[in-house]
Amino acid sequence: MESRMLWLYSPYLLLYSWALSAHVFLAVAQRSTYIVHLDKSLMPIVFADHHHWHSSTIDSIKASVPSSVDRFHSAPKLVYSYDNVFHGFSVVLSNDELAALKKSPGFISAYKDRTVEPHTTYTSDFLKLNPSSGLWAASGLGQDVIIGVLDGGIWPESASFQDDGMPEIPKRWKGICRPGTQFNTSMCNRKLIGANYFNKGILANDPTVNISMNSARDTNGHGSHCASIAAGNFAKGVSHFGYAAGTARGVAPRARLAMYKFSFAEGTFTSDLIAAMDQAVADGVDMISISFGYRFIPLYEDTISIASFGAMMKGVLVSASAGNRGPGWGTLGNGSPWILCVAAGYTDRTFAGTLTLGNRLKIKGWSLFPASAFVRDSPVIYNKTIAACDSDELLSQVPDRERTIVICDYNPDTNGFGFSSQISSVIRARFKAGIFISEDPVVFRDRGDAAPFTHPGVVINQKEGKQVINYVKSSVSPTATIMFQETYVHGERPSPVLSGFSSRGPSKSYAGIAKPDIMAPGVLILAAVPPDLPAVIIEPEIQLTTDYELKSGTSMAAPHAAGVAAMLKGAHPEWSPSAIRSAMMTTANYLDSTQKPIREDDNFLATPLGIGSGHIDPNRALDPGLVYDATPQDYINLLCSLNFTEEQFKTFARSSANYRNCSNPSADLNYPSFIAFYSFNEEGNYTWLEQKFRRTLTNVGKGGTTYIVKIENPRNSTVSVSPQTLVFKEKNEKQSYNLTIRYRGDDSGGHDGSITWVEKNGNHSVRSPIVTTTTVEVWGADD
Amino acid sequence: MESRMLWLYSPYLLLYSWALSAHVFLAVAQRSTYIVHLDKSLMPIVFADHHHWHSSTIDSIKASVPSSVDRFHSAPKLVYSYDNVFHGFSVVLSNDELAALKKSPGFISAYKDRTVEPHTTYTSDFLKLNPSSGLWAASGLGQDVIIGVLDGGIWPESASFQDDGMPEIPKRWKGICRPGTQFNTSMCNRKLIGANYFNKGILANDPTVNISMNSARDTNGHGSHCASIAAGNFAKGVSHFGYAAGTARGVAPRARLAMYKFSFAEGTFTSDLIAAMDQAVADGVDMISISFGYRFIPLYEDTISIASFGAMMKGVLVSASAGNRGPGWGTLGNGSPWILCVAAGYTDRTFAGTLTLGNRLKIKGWSLFPASAFVRDSPVIYNKTIAACDSDELLSQVPDRERTIVICDYNPDTNGFGFSSQISSVIRARFKAGIFISEDPVVFRDRGDAAPFTHPGVVINQKEGKQVINYVKSSVSPTATIMFQETYVHGERPSPVLSGFSSRGPSKSYAGIAKPDIMAPGVLILAAVPPDLPAVIIEPEIQLTTDYELKSGTSMAAPHAAGVAAMLKGAHPEWSPSAIRSAMMTTANYLDSTQKPIREDDNFLATPLGIGSGHIDPNRALDPGLVYDATPQDYINLLCSLNFTEEQFKTFARSSANYRNCSNPSADLNYPSFIAFYSFNEEGNYTWLEQKFRRTLTNVGKGGTTYIVKIENPRNSTVSVSPQTLVFKEKNEKQSYNLTIRYRGDDSGGHDGSITWVEKNGNHSVRSPIVTTTTVEVWGADD
Repeated sequence: MESRMLWLYSPYLLLYSWALSAHVFLAVAQRSTYIVHLDKSLMPIVFADHHHWHSSTIDSIKASVPSSVDRFHSAPKLVYSYDNVFHGFSVVLSNDELAALKKSPGFISAYKDRTVEPHTTYTSDFLKLNPSSGLWAASGLGQDVIIGVLDGGIWPESASFQDDGMPEIPKRWKGICRPGTQFNTSMCNRKLIGANYFNKGILANDPTVNISMNSARDTNGHGSHCASIAAGNFAKGVSHFGYAAGTARGVAPRARLAMYKFSFAEGTFTSDLIAAMDQAVADGVDMISISFGYRFIPLYEDTISIASFGAMMKGVLVSASAGNRGPGWGTLGNGSPWILCVAAGYTDRTFAGTLTLGNRLKIKGWSLFPASAFVRDSPVIYNKTIAACDSDELLSQVPDRERTIVICDYNPDTNGFGFSSQISSVIRARFKAGIFISEDPVVFRDRGDAAPFTHPGVVINQKEGKQVINYVKSSVSPTATIMFQETYVHGERPSPVLSGFSSRGPSKSYAGIAKPDIMAPGVLILAAVPPDLPAVIIEPEIQLTTDYELKSGTSMAAPHAAGVAAMLKGAHPEWSPSAIRSAMMTTANYLDSTQKPIREDDNFLATPLGIGSGHIDPNRALDPGLVYDATPQDYINLLCSLNFTEEQFKTFARSSANYRNCSNPSADLNYPSFIAFYSFNEEGNYTWLEQKFRRTLTNVGKGGTTYIVKIENPRNSTVSVSPQTLVFKEKNEKQSYNLTIRYRGDDSGGHDGSITWVEKNGNHSVRSPIVTTTTVEVWGADD
Repeated sequence: MESRMLWLYSPYLLLYSWALSAHVFLAVAQRSTYIVHLDKSLMPIVFADHHHWHSSTIDSIKASVPSSVDRFHSAPKLVYSYDNVFHGFSVVLSNDELAALKKSPGFISAYKDRTVEPHTTYTSDFLKLNPSSGLWAASGLGQDVIIGVLDGGIWPESASFQDDGMPEIPKRWKGICRPGTQFNTSMCNRKLIGANYFNKGILANDPTVNISMNSARDTNGHGSHCASIAAGNFAKGVSHFGYAAGTARGVAPRARLAMYKFSFAEGTFTSDLIAAMDQAVADGVDMISISFGYRFIPLYEDTISIASFGAMMKGVLVSASAGNRGPGWGTLGNGSPWILCVAAGYTDRTFAGTLTLGNRLKIKGWSLFPASAFVRDSPVIYNKTIAACDSDELLSQVPDRERTIVICDYNPDTNGFGFSSQISSVIRARFKAGIFISEDPVVFRDRGDAAPFTHPGVVINQKEGKQVINYVKSSVSPTATIMFQETYVHGERPSPVLSGFSSRGPSKSYAGIAKPDIMAPGVLILAAVPPDLPAVIIEPEIQLTTDYELKSGTSMAAPHAAGVAAMLKGAHPEWSPSAIRSAMMTTANYLDSTQKPIREDDNFLATPLGIGSGHIDPNRALDPGLVYDATPQDYINLLCSLNFTEEQFKTFARSSANYRNCSNPSADLNYPSFIAFYSFNEEGNYTWLEQKFRRTLTNVGKGGTTYIVKIENPRNSTVSVSPQTLVFKEKNEKQSYNLTIRYRGDDSGGHDGSITWVEKNGNHSVRSPIVTTTTVEVWGADD
């Protein structure tokens, strides 16, 4: 079970340090930390409050089980009490004590604490946010909303977290600014209104551990980055070593931030995560952003899902990263129906090094070399023998290398990843610079990895490579100039594009809802980081720091979506979490900047299992026309439809009362997307499939109006909708329709279509993707 | 004679490239370029204008001398006609042709063309300039004045040369924006109002030379740097690789700039320099700044002096750099009485790397490593055997070097210059960083050289070094953290301080006036440079570029003084060049920030032969109370007092009319400083000395007032002044006084004192330094 770790969702940069810390907890002794769910409705009347109940429960276990002492844990010990996102506690128990606990009144379920996977600002421009109209204007740039970010802490001194231009803190805020190591209460302000930290789970696991930064201060970069993406204030004159230079700002630059740090260098535990989310909901956040996730975990043990269900029940939407395990199918995390699950796309911004040959040919290559290297009119060599750049011996025979640019040829065997070893060879041989010929740059140039540029150089594609080689071969003394630190927006290629690393649906924790929900920017996003961490390397040994850094990952996409959702809450305080999510999904762009369907970064067409409903469009989401709303009872009804035991059910839904109320179980949640599965019959052929859905739309437009359906059938399926016209007489009126997908077989693989409700006057269109795909097996307790 | 080269006055960075270019002209053939002075009053009436006269003169030489053809120069050829700063022309001649020319009517003198030595912005803050009062307010930040910068060109795209906030160009401006290579007329604007270039002298020397940048565009950095110091517009968010970060601005941020490029990669010739200054005066500049100079040249062949005399006669003051040949005595250039000669001092700004030891001891070291290196809690080693850091073999035996900081000990034998080789050893051994123990940082830390920091490290002094070594020796696992890119102002040590490199007086071209005149900031000045040049190096082979760079030199001091002088001209259009200089000199600060006499960077007391009257104080110069004015005739009278031949005299004063008017020769120029020489008698003892001066002060204050003299005697001398009280009844009234210096002997070396006229109400004090020193020999034609 310990292999089910909760990870930061950042694909390249952060994995290593977190992998290290994740192993700390393997030193667990005989007792373990358990997350315990209780049915509060069964709390004996004798207890004044639930804290009393919890401690009394633990005391009674102590009394009933013979004392078993291990090195760290001399007796059962309460870690946290939870009461907001679910009801229960975390506790350090032996197996015997656990058995005793299970007999206690109100016990629902218990499972071992786990460690959690983390998932990484021009983007407000890319999202067309502007102060004079649309969502920024309608929400006052988010000034009335509070975003709780659950992560690894924050760097309060960052320009992104200063409160210039911020009005007073909303009175309803109940959170605190908790002091700790290198953190005092004066570090909070009208922007960073709360800071708290949760590491009792780490200490329960190993009481001897020394928490090196026992406060909400960020020691990793991930938390500050995510927080500043969601709601960083305007920060002028920042850049990633000269790239992406300008004013960074969060998606909701006036929204309030509260940091709930549950991820520490010493470990990242479920018990702490729940405590963080529990506190965030109690404090009054409007929106939660979390860029962590599990893999291979059954829904009823996925505490992010369980706690998010509780948050949803209290009206708080959780935006969570899909994970960075793409591009394979079924790699997605945080795919629960009550979470906003966010995929990561590219923006239209590229970071370049311009290569200019002696014959004046200019080629815009890819570079992120982190300094203004001087490479002007330097001699270039191309020599077939050495061009693989894989032999230090051959390379070091080239004369005058410190003045010379070497061309490293494309090596199809390395699938584009030969660059890292080629650049190392170029460094060891001390060439002035390198020109690296790669496969199609759409695959490689922007794959989100800023790290490998440890030496001056550019990556160009094979066609450009041929031009360069031809010039060098035909010139007596070929030369080239390379300019670095160049940033281009509105590039020549379409945008957005789905990143390869973004995890793909269907969700294997619950496949009944198409996931992810939406795509947001998540590749090479500039945001705040602590200035005392190594960010990039020049040459083998010089590490450099920065206060703003480009990072990639669905970790960076989730806070984008959280910022937008928060502003929607600010503009429409009456909207439920489901309505907010629906508004974002039905208005998302499924077409790119060339008005063609969005593609993946390998140039294949993206599907709703990669991009959800499409790329987030904040200004359109402000005014969706219609929404698919859902109430807490609708989510309970969905839970009722699952083959859950009573205990599993109550892990989410808390009380038996809810379980007994399962009179109307339904997996047909009123969701703004559709997914239908088909499977093989005994002869190995696809079975005919017919799946029916019923949906209800709420008119959130201005008054009476009429919508007409427009259907795009998935290949090999037919979609029928009835009625085909919906007439709303007034605002807030609801109208329902039935939708049937009939799969005609004879083809494998997933297919997608859509239905769009188009307003008769053309003002609104309300689109939902439709996915048909083969059945997937969901993760069980034995995976 | 060719060894008398004109050099850029920048001590470290620029010498090499200019030294290279200076040798181009050694390929001279049988004909050479000559600068020819003519007496225009002797121009035969037959000529319509002087151009006609010049060409006719050359034609008559062609006719009179048998044709001698060399490879480049088939006949005598006119290069430039000059008519503003003096009258004459430059011409390519053989020896025979020169002999013929000497017989032409009006001929005064001729000497061979030469190549010229160049001398390198928080400083406006350091100079206490502010928009609401003082000189900035009085001159509208210099918006009505035009500064001509004679140098190596300009980078018009620099933020410093944009015209935001600039009003219309003054109507009197007659200059042009001359197109050329990579330069078109639209590159001038309301800030850069003129751009011209002069390289006929280079081509006359070698007609086959290819002028690689045949325009006013800067290919070197020196010209843009100087121009932006004098009058760069506000440029936000600039830095030298993170050091000195902020808003750069010139001393006169609204003054107009005209660039006269006479220095090219292909050569820097006197004939071009004169053409540039001639044109600047004709165009109507108010002030000229030139950061070039000669050494070992007699006054009557020093074309900067000759042309500056002409400019002074036309009311244009020339601010010129003293040179970077200090700290020896008599190393100064541009020491003519009619030039404002500027020495270079330090500001109170330092660039630091903070070293924090594992025991929390913090030491502010010196660093200019040009990136944000990550060195945190890294192991430190101190090992007596390797601590000289002079053995690659020993250093490379240290294990785990890429994670380790090495301490390099102070080596008294290298006089502080061992650092460059120590850092190279540390790089080769690939240590993470170095701690370099140096002598007193006042000598070393700020000596103005930004170049050697090619690897992360800090320089600390010996006392700090002992603390570090003690910690390392006494700790089991010593660690240290180094923070880079730190900038401190208002530092702990006094400011300003005279730089060691600043050339010292007396002037060996003319010793009768104490030189330099004044000190201005000239160490590690941040200003604009072309972004396509290598500025610093990381590791052996990665060169980096920047658009703003820290440079040091009297080259940087001269444009500071030019900016101040220009604003004084703007605030007091009626003031003569001599009055402007007097105002700057009598108000200069001879005390430092601790109210003690200014020191040299080796901690000795500075003297007027190092700092002139003291450190420039722009706001006090606006309102000096009294000025020592001088008319063109006063300068002629001084020329008359020199043992010049008629030809030498006319080289400056142009016409015989002036020579015949030498009825009142006087070396006792009405100058705001005093210098007296003593010498040995035949017995080898010092002779008694008595030198008398007469001075006239003009009341430029508001109305009637009384001043009382305050005398500070030089050691071993007595100064008497008569009268001791000066009563002015009204503004612009003049009052004279006599001053006698009596040297009492018995001591060698220079001594200085001062007299100060203190206004009775205490509002103004008008100070002049007094120098007594041993006789110096001036440079003659044979040096």
